[in-house]
Amino acid sequence: MPPEEFRRHAHALVEWAAGYFEQIETHAVLAQVAPGDVRRALPDRAPEHPEPFEQVIADLDRIILPAATHWNHPGFFAYFAITGSAPGVLMDMVSSALNQQAMLWRTSPAATELEEVTLRWLARLMHLPDEIEGVIYDTASISTLHALAAAREVAVPDVRTRGLAGRDVPPLRVYCSEHAHSSVDKAVIALGLGHQALRRIPADDRFSMRVDALEAALSEDRAAGIRPVAIVATVGTTSSTSVDDVEAIAAIAKREQIWLHVDAAYAGVMAMVPEFAWIRAGLDQADSIVVNPHKWLFTPFDLSVLFTPRMDVIRQAFSLTPEYLKTPETGAVRNLMDTGVQLGRRFRALKLWAILRYFGAEGVRARLREHCRLAQLFASWVDEDPDFERVAPVPFSVVCFRAINAGQQQASPDLDAFNHAIIDRVNKTGEVFLSHTSLNGQIVIRLAVGNLRTEERHLRRAWALLREALAQHSSQAAPAL
Amino acid sequence: MPPEEFRRHAHALVEWAAGYFEQIETHAVLAQVAPGDVRRALPDRAPEHPEPFEQVIADLDRIILPAATHWNHPGFFAYFAITGSAPGVLMDMVSSALNQQAMLWRTSPAATELEEVTLRWLARLMHLPDEIEGVIYDTASISTLHALAAAREVAVPDVRTRGLAGRDVPPLRVYCSEHAHSSVDKAVIALGLGHQALRRIPADDRFSMRVDALEAALSEDRAAGIRPVAIVATVGTTSSTSVDDVEAIAAIAKREQIWLHVDAAYAGVMAMVPEFAWIRAGLDQADSIVVNPHKWLFTPFDLSVLFTPRMDVIRQAFSLTPEYLKTPETGAVRNLMDTGVQLGRRFRALKLWAILRYFGAEGVRARLREHCRLAQLFASWVDEDPDFERVAPVPFSVVCFRAINAGQQQASPDLDAFNHAIIDRVNKTGEVFLSHTSLNGQIVIRLAVGNLRTEERHLRRAWALLREALAQHSSQAAPAL
Repeated sequence: MPPEEFRRHAHALVEWAAGYFEQIETHAVLAQVAPGDVRRALPDRAPEHPEPFEQVIADLDRIILPAATHWNHPGFFAYFAITGSAPGVLMDMVSSALNQQAMLWRTSPAATELEEVTLRWLARLMHLPDEIEGVIYDTASISTLHALAAAREVAVPDVRTRGLAGRDVPPLRVYCSEHAHSSVDKAVIALGLGHQALRRIPADDRFSMRVDALEAALSEDRAAGIRPVAIVATVGTTSSTSVDDVEAIAAIAKREQIWLHVDAAYAGVMAMVPEFAWIRAGLDQADSIVVNPHKWLFTPFDLSVLFTPRMDVIRQAFSLTPEYLKTPETGAVRNLMDTGVQLGRRFRALKLWAILRYFGAEGVRARLREHCRLAQLFASWVDEDPDFERVAPVPFSVVCFRAINAGQQQASPDLDAFNHAIIDRVNKTGEVFLSHTSLNGQIVIRLAVGNLRTEERHLRRAWALLREALAQHSSQAAPAL
Repeated sequence: MPPEEFRRHAHALVEWAAGYFEQIETHAVLAQVAPGDVRRALPDRAPEHPEPFEQVIADLDRIILPAATHWNHPGFFAYFAITGSAPGVLMDMVSSALNQQAMLWRTSPAATELEEVTLRWLARLMHLPDEIEGVIYDTASISTLHALAAAREVAVPDVRTRGLAGRDVPPLRVYCSEHAHSSVDKAVIALGLGHQALRRIPADDRFSMRVDALEAALSEDRAAGIRPVAIVATVGTTSSTSVDDVEAIAAIAKREQIWLHVDAAYAGVMAMVPEFAWIRAGLDQADSIVVNPHKWLFTPFDLSVLFTPRMDVIRQAFSLTPEYLKTPETGAVRNLMDTGVQLGRRFRALKLWAILRYFGAEGVRARLREHCRLAQLFASWVDEDPDFERVAPVPFSVVCFRAINAGQQQASPDLDAFNHAIIDRVNKTGEVFLSHTSLNGQIVIRLAVGNLRTEERHLRRAWALLREALAQHSSQAAPAL
């Protein structure tokens, strides 16, 4: 494409993107298309001849936007709400233009060293020990995979060479809370430990892993000849954002000499905020910690960080240099390909670096606090309303609650269906998007604050829509309850 | 960031990017900085207060560009030369702005279905069977990891649940050519098979896997009670772009009922070009094929495709839906999280879709042909020059050759050092960037064509620089040889 044509389309797309951001609230948050709509709108073969790029741009409005669920929308309260902040988007554009492939230091000294600097900044903001080293992966699933691969390397020292099959290795086990994320399951499956190697420990009434149950499980397993590989503690579980007692768990891990991985993908960033200093306890004892700037640090997807004081173990597990990747600098520099399965990697640090500079540490903290304030405010409305009940504490920016009918506070399939129906009704308005989870065997509505565009008015609107849906559904469905 | 400020910076960055592309040849291809230069140019803590975004932009020129190795440069001939083409860059910008996270169909119907459509286009262009299904991952390393995980699932049917340790599983084995990519090694390590489970089969004098040696290895291993898990054939090896006899290997895999994975990360796209129809032979028999549009299909990093007629096995290995990710559509739609370790995924299909439309199939084919023509031209210069020898056939766009001195054509450490010295001298000019490999125990210079900006004049310049370096080095170092 000639430079002038690139300029023309790029400026047009900047206007398109700016307009999209300005008009974000005119879109339905949850895409209102039916399965197959996008597929049917497009030809089933690539064009033989070139098409004008204007047609591609036109299809963004015609096909893509209506079929997008708008994670940028201030009414996005599902899963974990995220923000692709402007400085992040701008620098991700630069990253696409530079097209760095940072497998080796020499293939991108900029990406390699900026990653090091930016992660040092982040580690210090989070008050992590100075000996900790970081690496950027795409997702928390991959960060956790590498953390547990390192744990496996320690537990079965020759596993890199000899593997786990066809030899005498005792059954292995990884421990996590019943509320830990499914990425832990996928990691143990991928690593060949097997799903049954994951032992989920029951949680207490605040949804934190029961430390006594963890100790009992370890004793029981040791007695049965099972070898513990890792304990995964969570700071901000996906369902309720509950926090495991990392300090107590770290003491056990240390005593028992088991790798401690902390999944702080969502809430780890709160270690930056002084009022939340309590979540730092034990992090300095962790063998690895995953934190996702693409979750709650305003970074466009994808960018996950693994921090570890034991990067040498990850290198020991994965470093491997074929002749064609040897360089004069080998050994003297950090080559990012040594710290994982992926050889190539995009220049992701650029966007996080720009975000930390644009907002400044105080700006980041202020926005995190505001999200927590909004969640507390919403929780207070739930608490004051007899038609709803809150189901979990709100340590951060997520509220778990459910609609109840007088005298029907107990678990019941009808009440679960009732809450599902309320969520569906609210989501169909297109004004907000909520998701659900299950806590204590009950279907629970989740409202997650995490988008920088979200203001108090969006929470008020979400609350009004929930009240309306409850009223409408109750009047229609009253006999069924 | 207020929309007007976003507009201002975004337009400025468009001009910056356009200027960068226009001026690309003014940059040294290989970054000329020393280790630590970037780190030392930056503060060791994040700023406490916000910085003007203009300062971040200014640092692109001050710190980032001089420390970038310019994969966009037409003189980039190292590893595999790639292109972040303009339509790809433009749509990757849109992807950053939209910030889709396509874990579930409902979290991005657009990304989910556009991926399906675009990969159908690509599969048809490559003449792959219609029953093949595709999925986009970040890198070939991850594609191959999933392919071999599926193979493991078939070879050890309850491996997902029971894993490989603490039970009676025979030793497992994966077969590949001695020239197969290191991602195969990393995959067997990650999956718990162990590095020694990878048996590298010797290649013939054209660097293709010796099929007789593969058969012998299989017989030997079967007799020793080893269970074959997969055979990895390569279409375009990293060192020399040699092609394994996929058809013959597929026949063996079929007879022996072993998963056949084809690593066509680099050269798979050539299946689009009629004159290269020969590389299609056997692809229809493969259980999985990896093709990297970010290598030779003009797509900004990252975008790797895994094609397989057995996506059900990948789903069987990894699909796992916690309560909070259940949706009314579960079961009725494709949820991308079911096809791998990674839960979240970026909207990568958008850029590939735009590229196929902007160039059209004929445009893509013409550019691939041109790269092959340039490589053949360069190879002819090598062949005509008594000071150099070509070391491998040139089936595609990579030339492997080395400098020789009369009477010194045999392997020798001095000649290896001589070639290293020539590469270093040429790379230090900043005009081109070449890398090396090892073939037949000799250090070999690799020249890879793959950038859309590369013209014949860049090849001529590379050749002139090589001749100059040879002359200079020979005159200085003659006694040593």
